[in-house]
Amino acid sequence: VSARDWPDIAGELTPEGHRLPVRVYYEDTDFSGLVYHASYVRFLERGRSDFLRLLGIGHREFAAEPGAPAFAVRRMTVEFHRPARIDDLVMVETSVQEITGSRLILRQAVTRGADRLVEAEVTVVVVDQSGRPRRIPALARDRLTGSASPPA
Amino acid sequence: VSARDWPDIAGELTPEGHRLPVRVYYEDTDFSGLVYHASYVRFLERGRSDFLRLLGIGHREFAAEPGAPAFAVRRMTVEFHRPARIDDLVMVETSVQEITGSRLILRQAVTRGADRLVEAEVTVVVVDQSGRPRRIPALARDRLTGSASPPA
Amino acid sequence: VSARDWPDIAGELTPEGHRLPVRVYYEDTDFSGLVYHASYVRFLERGRSDFLRLLGIGHREFAAEPGAPAFAVRRMTVEFHRPARIDDLVMVETSVQEITGSRLILRQAVTRGADRLVEAEVTVVVVDQSGRPRRIPALARDRLTGSASPPA
Amino acid sequence: VSARDWPDIAGELTPEGHRLPVRVYYEDTDFSGLVYHASYVRFLERGRSDFLRLLGIGHREFAAEPGAPAFAVRRMTVEFHRPARIDDLVMVETSVQEITGSRLILRQAVTRGADRLVEAEVTVVVVDQSGRPRRIPALARDRLTGSASPPA
Repeated sequence: VSARDWPDIAGELTPEGHRLPVRVYYEDTDFSGLVYHASYVRFLERGRSDFLRLLGIGHREFAAEPGAPAFAVRRMTVEFHRPARIDDLVMVETSVQEITGSRLILRQAVTRGADRLVEAEVTVVVVDQSGRPRRIPALARDRLTGSASPPA
Repeated sequence: VSARDWPDIAGELTPEGHRLPVRVYYEDTDFSGLVYHASYVRFLERGRSDFLRLLGIGHREFAAEPGAPAFAVRRMTVEFHRPARIDDLVMVETSVQEITGSRLILRQAVTRGADRLVEAEVTVVVVDQSGRPRRIPALARDRLTGSASPPA
Repeated sequence: VSARDWPDIAGELTPEGHRLPVRVYYEDTDFSGLVYHASYVRFLERGRSDFLRLLGIGHREFAAEPGAPAFAVRRMTVEFHRPARIDDLVMVETSVQEITGSRLILRQAVTRGADRLVEAEVTVVVVDQSGRPRRIPALARDRLTGSASPPA
Repeated sequence: VSARDWPDIAGELTPEGHRLPVRVYYEDTDFSGLVYHASYVRFLERGRSDFLRLLGIGHREFAAEPGAPAFAVRRMTVEFHRPARIDDLVMVETSVQEITGSRLILRQAVTRGADRLVEAEVTVVVVDQSGRPRRIPALARDRLTGSASPPA
């Protein structure tokens, strides 16, 4: 099995950023009958991971750089507007809100059709192996801002 | 977003049963650097859910029947042969091993290319709302054995 | 087994609110070797649940009231300062920041010794069974503000 | 916060092995209203981790040995007899069933009062950093069989 055989598995790049379809399974719900609030936090991370993957700046590319830098979440604000339920097919939407030398702020949403279920703002930094912040690598920065194209 | 727009999101029916591609995310790994063993148990459940979904005998169809029956796991044996890692794209394969009046035994595997990482045998029963076992509904039985076709 | 035999299992009420010790297990970590960021969100929920439990206004008491009201998270801001690791024993601290007729704002932190690893502000509302917001029941309000004592 | 201040946080050694009280939180349940089946697998791992911790042969002690050996689950059989529910306080019981040079078989159960909810047999091996099986270290073996005392 390769990503080529299942082209949708990492979602798709869009003019605004990225979108990833996510199915709600048993594991994502709780006894209230709805999706557990921390499950959306996992969904958001999947969206960010696949956005970076399709831009060619995922874990593997980063780990191969000098110092093995990695992205780390520093801050997130999540608003829960409406609940998702078992079997729902929701969309995780991710776009770049702001990028500075050392900090990336993403806007994310979980939507179901026209409904915005969850909205989030997530601040991500790049750290080296000892956890110290460092500058966002130039290639990552250029691809996130659209000034460099993603890999073919 | 609908399943029609993302046709692969529930995997696909195969001559042997069903297969579902699953991406390994941060949430699925642990500090050993590999996939956490209980994450495979979640992957297996996703495979079973989508197999039943594509056969048209998922939660929604069941919940609409008299007594609102539901599938419940009664027993599982899981063998862990080789580990998966972050970013891997693995396949969850599911097939019917045996079906009796009240019990369904599934064979499942998590594979990566030609490697069988995890193998499992999962016994599922149908219970009513009070948790009492009941017979597997005829339509579910016929679709699981292939004597009735899945919905178009 | 009863809570009486394991008195610490729900943490303890403090002058500021509540604190709950939480052990970091395999399941809470990810391949970076540190605790996965969404695991802290689960820890915070455990702290809130046990705070309400010790105040006598947990799920069971709420579910027995007319309309079966329930708490739901509406908004959360989480700051990740330092990481926790496998085997760490961390503390989840919870206190009431603000309470209005329909909204409860909690301050929470995950600490390890003198270090504040994670800080959060969580807005919780009360909803009825159809998801509509309703007023916070008087007893809950009085116990959360300290104007009524928790059950003995 | 130290383990000394919260003595129950790792459960306790018993003549049969170990027992650990576990609270059922939101995160452990699913939309059926009951505990999600993979949550018991997490509970079982917590029991094993704390059993090894109290025997003084946990991750830290192992990681300090030459070759940094680690325990890995090779096989597990889990039987689900009765469900647990939100707020339940369950007990995870662990005992050694068999130990050979390279393989440890544990019997585990999740109980609630006199009810045995879940029973499991879990085969664990010791692997080195490259994943190759190696012999169980002598001290671990002696403490698991009771021929050496746990640390004071």
